[in-house]
Amino acid sequence: MRNSSRSRVDPFIVMDVMEAARRAEEEGRRVIHMEVGQPGTGAPKGALAALEKAMQDGPLGYTVALGLPALRARIARMYAEWYGVDLNPDRVIITPGSSGGFLLAFTSLFDGGDRVGIGAPGYPSYRQILRALGMVPVDLPTAAQNRYQPVPEDFDQMDLAGLMVASPANPTGTMLDHAAMRALIEASHEQRASFISDEIYHGLEYEKKAVTALEITDQCYVINSFSKYFSMTGWRVGWMVVPEDHVRTVERIAQNMFICAPHASQIAALAAMDCEDELQANMDVYRRNRDLMLEGLPKAGFDRIAPPDGAFYVYADVSHLTDDSRAFAAEILDQAGVAVTPGLDFDPERGGGTLRFSYARATADLEEGLERLSRFMAARV
Amino acid sequence: MRNSSRSRVDPFIVMDVMEAARRAEEEGRRVIHMEVGQPGTGAPKGALAALEKAMQDGPLGYTVALGLPALRARIARMYAEWYGVDLNPDRVIITPGSSGGFLLAFTSLFDGGDRVGIGAPGYPSYRQILRALGMVPVDLPTAAQNRYQPVPEDFDQMDLAGLMVASPANPTGTMLDHAAMRALIEASHEQRASFISDEIYHGLEYEKKAVTALEITDQCYVINSFSKYFSMTGWRVGWMVVPEDHVRTVERIAQNMFICAPHASQIAALAAMDCEDELQANMDVYRRNRDLMLEGLPKAGFDRIAPPDGAFYVYADVSHLTDDSRAFAAEILDQAGVAVTPGLDFDPERGGGTLRFSYARATADLEEGLERLSRFMAARV
Repeated sequence: MRNSSRSRVDPFIVMDVMEAARRAEEEGRRVIHMEVGQPGTGAPKGALAALEKAMQDGPLGYTVALGLPALRARIARMYAEWYGVDLNPDRVIITPGSSGGFLLAFTSLFDGGDRVGIGAPGYPSYRQILRALGMVPVDLPTAAQNRYQPVPEDFDQMDLAGLMVASPANPTGTMLDHAAMRALIEASHEQRASFISDEIYHGLEYEKKAVTALEITDQCYVINSFSKYFSMTGWRVGWMVVPEDHVRTVERIAQNMFICAPHASQIAALAAMDCEDELQANMDVYRRNRDLMLEGLPKAGFDRIAPPDGAFYVYADVSHLTDDSRAFAAEILDQAGVAVTPGLDFDPERGGGTLRFSYARATADLEEGLERLSRFMAARV
Repeated sequence: MRNSSRSRVDPFIVMDVMEAARRAEEEGRRVIHMEVGQPGTGAPKGALAALEKAMQDGPLGYTVALGLPALRARIARMYAEWYGVDLNPDRVIITPGSSGGFLLAFTSLFDGGDRVGIGAPGYPSYRQILRALGMVPVDLPTAAQNRYQPVPEDFDQMDLAGLMVASPANPTGTMLDHAAMRALIEASHEQRASFISDEIYHGLEYEKKAVTALEITDQCYVINSFSKYFSMTGWRVGWMVVPEDHVRTVERIAQNMFICAPHASQIAALAAMDCEDELQANMDVYRRNRDLMLEGLPKAGFDRIAPPDGAFYVYADVSHLTDDSRAFAAEILDQAGVAVTPGLDFDPERGGGTLRFSYARATADLEEGLERLSRFMAARV
């Protein structure tokens, strides 16, 4: 049996780091994990309690493909609360994580060979899912002075069928403000490119609220998830907002591709939305961690960093230290016992000179990690 | 924003029946549901207990993409217990339901434009997922004398890149015996077509054990799920077995497309595999229901039925009664208060003359439904 051409998906380079970290831990070393992209916390207690009750109450069979109506309504209400956006709940589609949202959005909007612009650096799975669907990801190299976000000039004359943005972004944590978001939406509409906004890190903001594309236009797809702010990674539940006249199409694709998002996860997610106290306590930890990073990383020698507006990442330019971020990450793990992510996963062209540090985990670990990084860099110079 | 060509997925015709049934119930009518393809029972109690414990024990973050090692090992053990097949656990990949398995298998094996043979009648989502991925589903009309299963002659000279079979099948419930399965595997290998076996209804057999393709060859993809025998539809967890040299490729696709199957569901699924007593009690209900169907349907006038070897369906040829199964199903719902599935969902060409009856629900409901069908048919003649 042969594999298809489209199945030739790039490996995650960070997997090598994770495997090396696992081996080091097996040998009894203590590794500080700054490579992981998920909260150390679990789902809010209220979410677990709601699910425990639901498990007593009845069989958790399939839900309708669009998701539990109560959850769709609650999400629509959140758009009023968070952004002052009046959103018709019919436009909210529950998905198996944001991953499910990408599959649905790309299938709904693009055909084989269609070119879709994505900012580089960016979340690696955009590129890989597009390829696996027979589409063509087009890397748009972004500039530090643009907060590592694309600007209209970056995709002028590029014959794109779609543009995908993320704010706050992974790996940089940078955000698009209202004007920047509007400029991108208008430019993509002018080129008849469908606009997709990945808003998975919304809620994880530190200085100002992130802007949703829905503040600016209804003619877009917005993808979000319960994995990050709501701390429910392993539950695989997210949502997507689409234009009203796209709902039936996406519903049919979802019926066939997924049947539905996990029922248990939908119930937990609904309850999680009312666990504000616990979620804000998580935010307090991220806020403290971020402060520590912004102080500690430059002190250690990682001082060329992207403006960390949101999410739980710091993206550092280390091109003055290395042109092989993979080897550099291996060296940091080996000598400092800190696992970090090489930039090559996010930017195949320029990521040899960058690293991503995550501060999603416990503060004590982070303090230890920063100290280790500091000693490592001091010894290196 | 325009939708892609590949997004034009056929609607499920049964959705109209379900919507009409919902309206009838809203008006106070009691509807007997013979249209649903899922058990009325929930996950086994032991599965829920295991999850409750796990929710106390720690955050249920991402698992690795291939799934929890303990679950993969337990599934491999099941192949020894059920079929006497010695299976390397490394070849078992946990998926978000069998739906996730289809997406992974088709992406791993086929490129845009590739032709994939599927038996007609068959599960509608095969066709729709293939189309959504830019591939070409090729319906292979099956014959009653072949138990509505494809035979090698059906796809001779058809230039297929793959062949997908299901045993027990949906909608017919018919099975491939060892010789029939072997013939299909050999014929597809001769044509260099990849062989995929959908075994989601395994365990739901009544007179003899279903044959897994793995008894015959390692050069195949086998797709299965916890939804049917293990009664866990809404949990969205299943598995796939692939050749050893395909594991890494499928792993990379899964990392990008899904990250992982729902962690909570994986824990529940592992425990469900040791709930044999409860699962066999469910089987006792299906067995009793099947007996009632095989007695009651012919008596009512539905006597041209496919050999119901497994699953919980009876597929009836009603072409002597109608050439519009959609209108006929609407009539049955309206006049008898029984919801059934028009064959058109499973066989666009010939399904105007067929219906699918499900016996997955409670026995008392089924008895009532058969009585209603009997009265309906008597009044009709």
